[in-house]
Amino acid sequence: MTLLEECDSGTPPFIKEAAEKEPVSPEKLTRLVKNGHVVIPRNKIHDPIPKPIGRNLKVKINVNIGTSENQVDLQKELEKVKIAERYGADTVMDLSTGGDVDRIRRKIIRSTDIPVGTVPIYQCGLKKAREGAVVEMTSDDIFNSIRKHADDGVDFVTVHCGVTKKSVDSLKESQRLTDVVSRGGSFLTAWILHNQEENPLYSEFDYLLEIAKEYDLTLSLGDGFRPGSINDATDRPQIQELITLGELVKKCREEKVQAMVEGPGHVPIDQISTNVKIQKELCHGAPFYVLGPLVTDFAPGYDHIVGAIGGAIAAYEGADFLCYVTPAEHLGLPDTDDVKEGIIASRIAAHAADIARGVDQDIDRNISQARKELDWERMFDNVVDFDKAKKSREEKNVSEDETCSMCGDVCAFKILEEYLNL
Amino acid sequence: MTLLEECDSGTPPFIKEAAEKEPVSPEKLTRLVKNGHVVIPRNKIHDPIPKPIGRNLKVKINVNIGTSENQVDLQKELEKVKIAERYGADTVMDLSTGGDVDRIRRKIIRSTDIPVGTVPIYQCGLKKAREGAVVEMTSDDIFNSIRKHADDGVDFVTVHCGVTKKSVDSLKESQRLTDVVSRGGSFLTAWILHNQEENPLYSEFDYLLEIAKEYDLTLSLGDGFRPGSINDATDRPQIQELITLGELVKKCREEKVQAMVEGPGHVPIDQISTNVKIQKELCHGAPFYVLGPLVTDFAPGYDHIVGAIGGAIAAYEGADFLCYVTPAEHLGLPDTDDVKEGIIASRIAAHAADIARGVDQDIDRNISQARKELDWERMFDNVVDFDKAKKSREEKNVSEDETCSMCGDVCAFKILEEYLNL
Repeated sequence: MTLLEECDSGTPPFIKEAAEKEPVSPEKLTRLVKNGHVVIPRNKIHDPIPKPIGRNLKVKINVNIGTSENQVDLQKELEKVKIAERYGADTVMDLSTGGDVDRIRRKIIRSTDIPVGTVPIYQCGLKKAREGAVVEMTSDDIFNSIRKHADDGVDFVTVHCGVTKKSVDSLKESQRLTDVVSRGGSFLTAWILHNQEENPLYSEFDYLLEIAKEYDLTLSLGDGFRPGSINDATDRPQIQELITLGELVKKCREEKVQAMVEGPGHVPIDQISTNVKIQKELCHGAPFYVLGPLVTDFAPGYDHIVGAIGGAIAAYEGADFLCYVTPAEHLGLPDTDDVKEGIIASRIAAHAADIARGVDQDIDRNISQARKELDWERMFDNVVDFDKAKKSREEKNVSEDETCSMCGDVCAFKILEEYLNL
Repeated sequence: MTLLEECDSGTPPFIKEAAEKEPVSPEKLTRLVKNGHVVIPRNKIHDPIPKPIGRNLKVKINVNIGTSENQVDLQKELEKVKIAERYGADTVMDLSTGGDVDRIRRKIIRSTDIPVGTVPIYQCGLKKAREGAVVEMTSDDIFNSIRKHADDGVDFVTVHCGVTKKSVDSLKESQRLTDVVSRGGSFLTAWILHNQEENPLYSEFDYLLEIAKEYDLTLSLGDGFRPGSINDATDRPQIQELITLGELVKKCREEKVQAMVEGPGHVPIDQISTNVKIQKELCHGAPFYVLGPLVTDFAPGYDHIVGAIGGAIAAYEGADFLCYVTPAEHLGLPDTDDVKEGIIASRIAAHAADIARGVDQDIDRNISQARKELDWERMFDNVVDFDKAKKSREEKNVSEDETCSMCGDVCAFKILEEYLNL
């Protein structure tokens, strides 16, 4: 039985466990899963820690890892998984495209208890691209890659089902600056244009649902036409695809398959709220998984900050799941340091949205209480990165100092402590 | 004549120059300055580059520098000024509290053409604190320190005129977690509590206006009761003080002295818009100069990111001037690396707000056009940090590669280039 089928006869144990760390009861969480407003990725084979994603819950973050053609080092990828777990990632996606990707994927899945996602079309597209041309993929190649990933225990997969003949037409008619920046989206756009046929992930969606149901795989409906520049945000190709994804969400629910929807991308601050609201409407309240959003194109090297701004706003407006962005975005493959920086920035965005939505405010209260008492150790115990805070304090201060080197002897807390209780 | 007096007889040359880089005409900018919705700090003695701050203009950023008790190195402070100019700071504030602060201030003012601000009460408060107790400052000490800074050519000063007996009462009655975190605010709160007298900066505000008028000094009305934790945001002491600052803004205008108003501080995302709107209402449209805002207390070591999130939202909602926050915030005095990180984060926030408000969108368009064409050099010429982008690309890629190591041979732009024009 899929998790959605289990929900028909009460509250499944997996959902009871999931509710423990959330601001909702197990019964309410079951209702949210049943109506598709929450997903809890879980492949029967992997059986990960439950990480519920969606309405009324804490904002979750995903960490992309993986090799590329010229950078293949399994140990490094496994180290990235450890960093992801340590700094509070809720899920990881293995996007490996270099080396023995089957082995790498299996090792990653076995190394962690948090849900793992993949984008199966990368593997079959790359194989064809390296043998000749990506457009030579067959429908079987595509579905077999998804089945293989599911069989390895992957908990959720990105599937670009909304890249259709119709949306490709709307792309061609548009005045887009950066056409297609989604890798999977570009494979399928090229495939449709070359073969003049419909995307199998759309035309044979029922078959995809069969595979998903067999493994209880959560579908993450990818946005192949997400805007890749501020100029292209919220344009017709993007919204055309979103309409299609909304239709597919309904089909998933009918078949008791969990589904979420992916979103932009590059979006200016003034359009983020609109993007979240239109996704929630067109996709019938399905969880919204956003990449960034990136609120400017002008900061390569700092896109983790750009993504934290967009992610915090999106999450506050109702996005449920933030895909992290690293400082390496738009420049190259992230190394372990980039991964850490990306996770922290994304955690800050998620937590800032949580507290603005009334959740986890006691974390900040405890830190500020400790700060006022100049109890540095107790403060650091609760912060996003204990190591950096502690190291920075040690470097910037003399160890005997009770206060810090910013104000020294004229610390506002010390001065007020003396006079406020007169 | 002060700039405001000059405005009575047409458009002053200083405002004509200021309008060149703004999306408004010189005439409109003159009207904005006249009605107090824009300030252009300029001490007659310093005569800096015009950096107009306020409604309808590009968002500006300030960079705090300065020594502290145990970290005194003039060369380092001058280096920080150069970094500030290089990465796009609009103003610097010298907050030095260690070493020969008079000499340091004068050297900093002479080293730069952008406006310089200070917080004069630091100097007189520290002197008294080190001689005995900060509460022994006299009214003369306070005003003489302001006059000295003005006489050195400082273009704007923070003056905590809103810390009054009334607001201190409201603080004592409140359930604040972190009382007072503003250094100047803590000096004056202690002073009022100890001496049981009114804050001279409030009771003798007319004298302050005389000094300001003499030098054409812009007053930045400080928020001594800015919230220092998420818990304290938008509480009565903060708003009580803001009401007072709004009254003082009117007095400034009557005397033809330019004034802006400082704001929080620690504010959760859901309260930022309210904070901007209430400041604009209570302070009659005076420019709003915000510190952060910091949208969570839980990220010491990363407060530049926390401040970038809050700053971007605040600026989009109408704040005019962002005080940068560095990774060293809450931990110690920032070094030159921290200063650079802080400026970049703040520039990202300001620019993201600008493009969301319809200004400078061509910067992002040009970058994205270059990105699509894989013209890395042209892209980097337009980004916030040329050096980091270039270095990162060199480190993460083989130099002959046209694409990058993220996608390598399956670059979406390359694939689409081949098939989209079929």
